[in-house]
Amino acid sequence: MVHYIGTERLRELVSRVGCGRFIEELAAEIAADYQRWNEFEKSARLASHSTVGVIELMPTTDGKLYSFKYVNGHPKNTAQGLLTVTAFGVLADVSTGYPLLLSEMTFVTALRTAAICALAARHMARAGSRSMALIGNGAQSEFQAIAFHQLLGIRELRLYDTDSRATAKLIRNLARLQLQDLTVIRCGSTAEAVCGADIVTTVTADKCNATVLTPEMIEPGMHINGVGGDCPGKTELHGDILLRPDARIVVEYEPQARVEGEIQQLNGAGRVTELAQVLLGKQSARATELEVTIFDSVGFALTDFSSLRYLHRLNSEQPDGGQRIDLIPEPDDPKDLFAGLTPQTSRLRRRRTA
Amino acid sequence: MVHYIGTERLRELVSRVGCGRFIEELAAEIAADYQRWNEFEKSARLASHSTVGVIELMPTTDGKLYSFKYVNGHPKNTAQGLLTVTAFGVLADVSTGYPLLLSEMTFVTALRTAAICALAARHMARAGSRSMALIGNGAQSEFQAIAFHQLLGIRELRLYDTDSRATAKLIRNLARLQLQDLTVIRCGSTAEAVCGADIVTTVTADKCNATVLTPEMIEPGMHINGVGGDCPGKTELHGDILLRPDARIVVEYEPQARVEGEIQQLNGAGRVTELAQVLLGKQSARATELEVTIFDSVGFALTDFSSLRYLHRLNSEQPDGGQRIDLIPEPDDPKDLFAGLTPQTSRLRRRRTA
Repeated sequence: MVHYIGTERLRELVSRVGCGRFIEELAAEIAADYQRWNEFEKSARLASHSTVGVIELMPTTDGKLYSFKYVNGHPKNTAQGLLTVTAFGVLADVSTGYPLLLSEMTFVTALRTAAICALAARHMARAGSRSMALIGNGAQSEFQAIAFHQLLGIRELRLYDTDSRATAKLIRNLARLQLQDLTVIRCGSTAEAVCGADIVTTVTADKCNATVLTPEMIEPGMHINGVGGDCPGKTELHGDILLRPDARIVVEYEPQARVEGEIQQLNGAGRVTELAQVLLGKQSARATELEVTIFDSVGFALTDFSSLRYLHRLNSEQPDGGQRIDLIPEPDDPKDLFAGLTPQTSRLRRRRTA
Repeated sequence: MVHYIGTERLRELVSRVGCGRFIEELAAEIAADYQRWNEFEKSARLASHSTVGVIELMPTTDGKLYSFKYVNGHPKNTAQGLLTVTAFGVLADVSTGYPLLLSEMTFVTALRTAAICALAARHMARAGSRSMALIGNGAQSEFQAIAFHQLLGIRELRLYDTDSRATAKLIRNLARLQLQDLTVIRCGSTAEAVCGADIVTTVTADKCNATVLTPEMIEPGMHINGVGGDCPGKTELHGDILLRPDARIVVEYEPQARVEGEIQQLNGAGRVTELAQVLLGKQSARATELEVTIFDSVGFALTDFSSLRYLHRLNSEQPDGGQRIDLIPEPDDPKDLFAGLTPQTSRLRRRRTA
């Protein structure tokens, strides 16, 4: 039987651990895996594009465990009351090929994205960063806010969204959370939100080459956490920001980021650093207080691998052990699959019914 | 909510329809899809190999529906009481990216493989074929036997397996089925089983370049249904059989068959025909009674697509409608994912518990 974590079970798990601590534990799991970067089989995700969105499969393995995530991106879904991004994933045992866990990953994708962004920022933002601009106040914004409050000690959030209802929703949700010492400031424009912030997080959703951040907004020493630009033709930063001589760009996995990230605008040029090298201490993400650092996050299969393993352990550790589903047959004799499909008992049952 | 077909539900569905009719309906669904071959986005499967097996993802789409299958192949699994091949799959709506159905596909893979093999044989074997050799009497053999009995009118089965217990199991299962007018003959060798047969089905499991069939066994007019050779380094036919001047080779999808099928032995040479062209009547698979025809089946994503759509319809048509699982969140406001993760009711519940 395969373990199953549906949305209700995920709610229970997050509620038991607490959202901030859940993201922090996830970040630790992700950091541990990125530090053994070379042990993983890596590939760009397998995307199927349509005129209205994309469906992607994101597999990876360390030779012991295998995982993949199914994820879609459909910006127009909200108009019919549906989510822009939904996801689910599977963790499997490489030695047998058997799936171990099937889990919802719509919530998990938001949680793990926030976790890796905060993890990267801990190595990239100036020490003592306390103020963050949050541009784009949609589905992922609360997760970013919680992660940066919990892992970086952000105490001032400067919010802006072109849709004022999104900002109102974010403020309402943050108020409910009663995060310690957090000041939330509603701003009238991106420029106003960004002005004076230590960290700028962009997490907008339109599938186009947007210029959410323009060069004159960027101040020396800022850390830019670019989350929303994550597929070909979908970017948030003006290209000149990437071309600043003092800019240091960190990505999850360079071959994928070149296609999907902000750096798709560089057409293969420019130097970028992979996060694993920073976490391993092999490369530094910031040399001075004045450099501009950019985490160009697009989402990578390894982050989902870490998340699924964390979830599998957390779920199994609960006293109730969680639910299992009959996704894989368990025949008495593995060489006799057919008898497993047509057991004599059910044949008898059918005869009786007939 | 996503529809769910677990192994118990699949047993019910097959039992309600009957195994032979289930395969026949599946074959009709597969034929209809292969006849609109050009509407599908096709790619070779994404394989992750380890020393003991392989895990694969097999996606495809026609622009309206999207499907993928997860499937593993681990020949040594049976030693620890596990299945060599397990699988599950998902059917999704391209317009929203939402998954519609999650289904077990371990049983379905065996059913659909038998269905497409019988479908191909209807166009490739000599008219009036009545006798089939079945070499390899393992997990898939019953499905091949039923499919060829149902769709081609095979009335004599000539069985051989290096493991005599496998043959005994197949005979036992076939006896239970009481298939109309079927004679089952147990043979002492592959050569004995093949001798005089109209159709030769090879469905062995070892991950190696085996030579289950050698050139001197092949008689004019035979149809060879090669099922077991399905990944790099795993073949069943002696290469000279493929090189016969009178041999006509049909595959599901040439780019994948060149890597995974029997024709990997040809190193890119030789002419092969895709099944779709045969089903569309654009190419003939047999010109004379004396030619040797070979269906070099490796399993292709489109066959799984057809199977998932058939299952989804069949499942929905049942009076009970089937089970659903909470794989995807259904928040009140799609722009407020966070509130869906931490509903106020569950917050209240937690407070009360605390």
